[in-house]
Amino acid sequence: MDPRAKLQPAARVAHRRQDVWTIVNEAAAASPKQPIVNMGQGFFGYNPPQFIINAAKEALDKVECNQYSPTRGRPRLKKAIADAYTPLWGRQLNPDTEITVTTGANEGMLSAFMAFIEKDDEVIIFEPFFDQYISNIEMPGGKVVYVPLHPPPNGATQNTSAGEWTIDFAELEAAISPKTKMIVLNTPHNPVGKVFSKEELLKIGELCVKNNIIILSDEVYDRLYYVPFTRIATLSPEVERLTLTVGSAGKNFYATGWRVGWLIGPPNLIQYVAAAHTRICYSSVSPLQEAAAVGFEQADANNFWETAIQEMKGKVDMFNEIWAELDLPFSDPEGGYFVLVNMKKVKVPADYPFPDHVKDRPRDFKLSWFLIQEVGVAAIPPTEFYTDANAHIGEDWLRFAVCKEDDVLVRAKERLRDLKKYIEH
Amino acid sequence: MDPRAKLQPAARVAHRRQDVWTIVNEAAAASPKQPIVNMGQGFFGYNPPQFIINAAKEALDKVECNQYSPTRGRPRLKKAIADAYTPLWGRQLNPDTEITVTTGANEGMLSAFMAFIEKDDEVIIFEPFFDQYISNIEMPGGKVVYVPLHPPPNGATQNTSAGEWTIDFAELEAAISPKTKMIVLNTPHNPVGKVFSKEELLKIGELCVKNNIIILSDEVYDRLYYVPFTRIATLSPEVERLTLTVGSAGKNFYATGWRVGWLIGPPNLIQYVAAAHTRICYSSVSPLQEAAAVGFEQADANNFWETAIQEMKGKVDMFNEIWAELDLPFSDPEGGYFVLVNMKKVKVPADYPFPDHVKDRPRDFKLSWFLIQEVGVAAIPPTEFYTDANAHIGEDWLRFAVCKEDDVLVRAKERLRDLKKYIEH
Repeated sequence: MDPRAKLQPAARVAHRRQDVWTIVNEAAAASPKQPIVNMGQGFFGYNPPQFIINAAKEALDKVECNQYSPTRGRPRLKKAIADAYTPLWGRQLNPDTEITVTTGANEGMLSAFMAFIEKDDEVIIFEPFFDQYISNIEMPGGKVVYVPLHPPPNGATQNTSAGEWTIDFAELEAAISPKTKMIVLNTPHNPVGKVFSKEELLKIGELCVKNNIIILSDEVYDRLYYVPFTRIATLSPEVERLTLTVGSAGKNFYATGWRVGWLIGPPNLIQYVAAAHTRICYSSVSPLQEAAAVGFEQADANNFWETAIQEMKGKVDMFNEIWAELDLPFSDPEGGYFVLVNMKKVKVPADYPFPDHVKDRPRDFKLSWFLIQEVGVAAIPPTEFYTDANAHIGEDWLRFAVCKEDDVLVRAKERLRDLKKYIEH
Repeated sequence: MDPRAKLQPAARVAHRRQDVWTIVNEAAAASPKQPIVNMGQGFFGYNPPQFIINAAKEALDKVECNQYSPTRGRPRLKKAIADAYTPLWGRQLNPDTEITVTTGANEGMLSAFMAFIEKDDEVIIFEPFFDQYISNIEMPGGKVVYVPLHPPPNGATQNTSAGEWTIDFAELEAAISPKTKMIVLNTPHNPVGKVFSKEELLKIGELCVKNNIIILSDEVYDRLYYVPFTRIATLSPEVERLTLTVGSAGKNFYATGWRVGWLIGPPNLIQYVAAAHTRICYSSVSPLQEAAAVGFEQADANNFWETAIQEMKGKVDMFNEIWAELDLPFSDPEGGYFVLVNMKKVKVPADYPFPDHVKDRPRDFKLSWFLIQEVGVAAIPPTEFYTDANAHIGEDWLRFAVCKEDDVLVRAKERLRDLKKYIEH
């Protein structure tokens, strides 16, 4: 054996296609159109509200807020989450047994997979998917089973609603096997912007109850919905006993860099998520847990949740005005802050020089690169969130994050007008 | 199959003995001696220095410091770490290829194991060990191989130095197999307080070079040493190419709840640790990374490192005065902030009522419980950090964390005087 072979990485990290964030960031840095208007990654272009920033600063002055928190989270935050979600659940949540705090929703989901997935257990996810799901399912040895969301058939020719992306329930049922241990939902959905309807969730819940499948419901955009929003855990006691609901202070309070998330669920599931989290991160960041607690405690007094919806919906609508001008159809989000735009009509010159790592990817990667270079706006190619087999579904779309200052959105619209000359009529 | 069987947890979280932190915390809550003087867990009883707190508050006002950081860490922190460790390494460290930031040292170590350990790979660790190592090695399927540190033979009858805990190099060599992929060092050591000597590290390094074993050197207490401190990565280029050094802002800057750590190592190892970290936590907490960067940038101007050593050594010595009064021998730490005290002479009444979960554990668990109930001081039983086979080595010792305010240490000493009547002469 070559002695250096012993320094080789494990398979789980060895083979890695260049990820979309790196490609888009490098493209942005190399673009002649500086500064780039970055609508790629879903971080906020503004700060958390001042009352939450103030709470973080106050926490930093307290000794106990700078030291280890309990592994399941600070009591004040668990109580604040229980108090905030009790009315939405329609029953009193127990902060000590039904809630556990994690290091962001991401590590919270990994903790859930680590808690329940053994080698070769199957986990169903819908395509397109948040890319981290895949590695998080595979780390404990799980096998991902994909079920596509079907885009509206007329999405390339007219504006549609994100709600028109649909599940084929025969496909979902066919994906279930005796090895199916979990299913991942994401509502409001990233990148589609779909809010799963109560009817859809009832059907999914019924299948899960019938087959005893744990539901991991990623609801990190749960405070940003523009149509009625149903939480699957609240449908019935039978569904609730199977459901882990994932939340995020980063998404709720405009602070994606704070890394505070949580799961809500029945005690017999939460206890194992908490055990896995303890082994992964031990505990989560203390002063920002305290600030998140204050965020929940004072949200209503500050009319924060309602303001958040109004402001974000305003951004969505203001930004989307540009597509009529360009005659490009978009998918109107029902929740969250991502807009999918159909770029089938954008004609990229046949001889356009793409770098090697873009040339071999689907058309949306080329569209993303082209927009960055030619108009100076960065958006995310959604086929990153598809398997190769289904990538064709997403290859004409781009995802724009509108969680940015209004002047940035105005600038983006101005720049996107430069796209006109490449659009076929 | 029982349909509920599908909700069972994975083996990695299913079988869990009650951990030492829970036992000690519950004992403390149930003690009649309130408030308990808690010298159990190694969190600080005081705040980070004001210049670092101020930096955290300033970061909270900046939009980019509240949003996602790059997965490998904020450029400012990576540069600050490179600048701080370059003189210690004796060569310029590259912040972009040789450093990666993690969510505390704990998740940093897990990332290293996830990066390199495949099923049945072996990892050597010394006993006693930091308890999280075990689950972190087992999560990716690794097998732990234990090598004991041997306590000084006269440790029960006279004061000794933590440096007298020794490695039997024949035992270490015998533990190496063709499957040995990594070895974990911890210096300054928790709970022993040993700073591994240059001679010991040279021998360990030689074995690792000969067998191409990756060295994961947990140096989270690297700024608290009271004897000369050697970093194994700096011994030779041959050793350095195998070495990942783990650091912790929480330990360096008195903020165990901040969850900012890092690894330093050669690019061909660091890149995979970073890839694993990305999949576990995506990125780490942004505003506190920024504060940690300022901590490194301004440490020298504030004479912080030297003050930290003087203050902690002062606490160690001031607290340890009590043992002469009680005629109990202690192991004087060479680094860190833990003191091991030998309690062989403490006579616990034969009919003392221990709860079931303590009754079945080694004598040190009973000593810990007894101290909490009878004198109101909490300390950690170190056999938690041993395998059952070697637990006898630690069963007469207790670990006291002295990283507390001086008045707390004075109160602890007062209370410990109550132990006198239980000590045999």
